[in-house]
Amino acid sequence: MLPRRISILGVGLLGGSMGLAIKSRAKDCRVVGYAHRQATLDAALKLGALDEGYADLASAVRGADCVVLCTPVGLFRELLADLGKLLAAGAIVTDVGSTKRSVVAAAEALLPPGITFIGSHPMAGSEKRGVQYARANLYDGALCILTPTGRTPPMAVDTIEQLWKLLGMRTCRLSPEEHDRRLADVSHLPHALAAALVAMQEPESVSLAGRGFADMTRIAGGDGALWRDIFLDNRDNVERSLDRLIAQLQTFRSLLTPDRADALAAWLDAVASRSRSEST
Amino acid sequence: MLPRRISILGVGLLGGSMGLAIKSRAKDCRVVGYAHRQATLDAALKLGALDEGYADLASAVRGADCVVLCTPVGLFRELLADLGKLLAAGAIVTDVGSTKRSVVAAAEALLPPGITFIGSHPMAGSEKRGVQYARANLYDGALCILTPTGRTPPMAVDTIEQLWKLLGMRTCRLSPEEHDRRLADVSHLPHALAAALVAMQEPESVSLAGRGFADMTRIAGGDGALWRDIFLDNRDNVERSLDRLIAQLQTFRSLLTPDRADALAAWLDAVASRSRSEST
Repeated sequence: MLPRRISILGVGLLGGSMGLAIKSRAKDCRVVGYAHRQATLDAALKLGALDEGYADLASAVRGADCVVLCTPVGLFRELLADLGKLLAAGAIVTDVGSTKRSVVAAAEALLPPGITFIGSHPMAGSEKRGVQYARANLYDGALCILTPTGRTPPMAVDTIEQLWKLLGMRTCRLSPEEHDRRLADVSHLPHALAAALVAMQEPESVSLAGRGFADMTRIAGGDGALWRDIFLDNRDNVERSLDRLIAQLQTFRSLLTPDRADALAAWLDAVASRSRSEST
Repeated sequence: MLPRRISILGVGLLGGSMGLAIKSRAKDCRVVGYAHRQATLDAALKLGALDEGYADLASAVRGADCVVLCTPVGLFRELLADLGKLLAAGAIVTDVGSTKRSVVAAAEALLPPGITFIGSHPMAGSEKRGVQYARANLYDGALCILTPTGRTPPMAVDTIEQLWKLLGMRTCRLSPEEHDRRLADVSHLPHALAAALVAMQEPESVSLAGRGFADMTRIAGGDGALWRDIFLDNRDNVERSLDRLIAQLQTFRSLLTPDRADALAAWLDAVASRSRSEST
């Protein structure tokens, strides 16, 4: 059963695209937006991403049966504390943040009984920011990880899972802890690596780089403050991922000698075969 | 002035694509191929990448005014020693290898006076190997680095530069030393990094990865023996690049604390702004 009135808090690339996608796929669902700046709301309304837009939270969530936090993660705690006073029992709150342990813990501590939180991490987006880049197919075909806990009612998980599926997403469920541990490896560490690879370059060398370098460093173009929040929030896991990566680089370095040429080729071939099988 | 009879030694992805491109753009140039296996020659002839194909070197280079080494780099020394006895004075030899110091030094030592070597590194290719993947536009728009030395006659540099331009490439000139140093940073180290990033993953995590991870690890799918040869040949530079990368990762790690949140965001923003400006 899909929500009938959804409030999207924060109408940027993710929130705006969610509004566009819902409005194109579930005509009878009312989409309400909340943003600080009236210009953002006007742009989202003009794009057709919202039915209504408000710069005050109480108006934006009045009567909502589902609320989606799409602001920067740094604003979640304050929003959650206010939502606890504004929402009616039975409402479900979810989010689109890239880390899950701290958000889920804050939500479960701040929301009163009767209001359910379930964490979501829709793995869609781009290096672009702002509602002007929003598009109805942003989420299509990508994966959304849901992070229920022992306290999450199964019906609420189903409702939010159906919402992401409506947007064209594949879904899976992990605990907040497992989410953060695995995402450190496949998302947060790769971002740090791409950044370090850019940071070490002499400017004159970059004009010599090919497509492979461009592919490897593209994700380093993301917003600094947003990634700072992700890294600090998931610091313990990111540090462990970094240690394991540096250990692999030291393995590589130890094989970098003619005496171990066969072992070096074998290491490279094993990785290549994993890389090819994982990309198919 | 373009060559009239070009011998391509090694008819895989790079050699085959070169044959296709020359034959589609310079109808009066004769393209002759050399390969160990008759099946490879037959495939290349059938594709239209060659006018003639031979499994013996003497037949393959008879009368050639230009020879291009497109075999694995490990075979270059033997080929160069033989070419010294087979080519007529005035012939120009070039190659498509990914490292340049050792190739240029070997060529200048092994080829007799009158036969000119100029190193080339056309930065085109793919993770695919074999003449069956050859295509006439493989080189289009990519960069070819030429590595003349004080011993290279300027006319030979011009001839080979025109040849790559005929194939649609942009060109630039660097010393073999500068080539190897800069390519360690923008090509060889990124390959090692992508490999280490794949090697450290738990298999179950990879299904959670998004497009960014796929982009970052795609180049790890290359051939192990080929990359082993590149790494060992450019070992000193690759080790220095690795040291500088690990230093950047340690910088990142030292900023991974709430006390230094502003410095972390500033580091990430500085990198993001470099990354965006370099990708435009």
